[in-house]
Amino acid sequence: MYLKSYFWPDNQNKMEVKIRKATVADMEAVYGLVCELAAYEKEPEAVTVDVGAYVEAFSQKLIDVTVADANGEIVGIALYYLTFSTWKGKCLFLEDFYVKPALRQAGIGKMLFDAYLEEAKKLGALQAKWQVLDWNQPALLFYAKYDAVIEKNWWNGKIYFNTKDTQ
Amino acid sequence: MYLKSYFWPDNQNKMEVKIRKATVADMEAVYGLVCELAAYEKEPEAVTVDVGAYVEAFSQKLIDVTVADANGEIVGIALYYLTFSTWKGKCLFLEDFYVKPALRQAGIGKMLFDAYLEEAKKLGALQAKWQVLDWNQPALLFYAKYDAVIEKNWWNGKIYFNTKDTQ
Repeated sequence: MYLKSYFWPDNQNKMEVKIRKATVADMEAVYGLVCELAAYEKEPEAVTVDVGAYVEAFSQKLIDVTVADANGEIVGIALYYLTFSTWKGKCLFLEDFYVKPALRQAGIGKMLFDAYLEEAKKLGALQAKWQVLDWNQPALLFYAKYDAVIEKNWWNGKIYFNTKDTQ
Repeated sequence: MYLKSYFWPDNQNKMEVKIRKATVADMEAVYGLVCELAAYEKEPEAVTVDVGAYVEAFSQKLIDVTVADANGEIVGIALYYLTFSTWKGKCLFLEDFYVKPALRQAGIGKMLFDAYLEEAKKLGALQAKWQVLDWNQPALLFYAKYDAVIEKNWWNGKIYFNTKDTQ
């Protein structure tokens, strides 16, 4: 259903982007994209887990992932898990949502997000929920197209048990 | 381990408060406290799920709850579930944390929160995470005692699939 072909990025080679559920074999690539983003944000040391944690969480069904697969290369991810709101019930929380910068503005993010919303409904969730950085205007504009509610009055509290983690 | 006796609230009858894991039979009382809080916040209609959703989520191990049991009455709750940070790994998220207003300032909240942190470590989580309203000074002071990190730069995005839900 979510399948698009592009002549791209060099306008010569045809690239086919397929949106599909990840398998455990994709965890290495998923982890790679997360590390790439952290490095881009100049926080490579903030990633303190290794790919083994992803494989474990995926195998235990704690997380699930939808990927954008471009001719066999993972170029985008939507990583999510079920949560529960005491007011609204079952919820699918989008923990990470990323498309490689070079491949943006081509609708891959929209395909991934739509697939995530479909998955949420399929799982019987009553809401989809995520977080966005307050300065991230492109992301806020993207979510506005979905008429998403944006709440600005909650802060995140955290306690790290791993002494390596400070942020 | 978390067991305290109080002469309270009338200084005559001894009340014993026990912190323990909830059973499915407690879900009615847990739901009751959530509704009480929503009514207190003048948003009783915001709770659009019924107790059945709690029983289902608890039975499916999507959520777990630690309760403060005062002579058989549930007077406080910590409701949480496992999540996953792509940077930090497994996390125990505290979705709801409430002590009946009449029984506050007696350390019940601290006992519940400590039990929640212990549970997080026991489950192999590398962090504890929750949200707090930006105006909630008593809660912020409470978390400051734990040297919690408070992040102020994330907004919550939400899409409701249930048309009854608007906030």
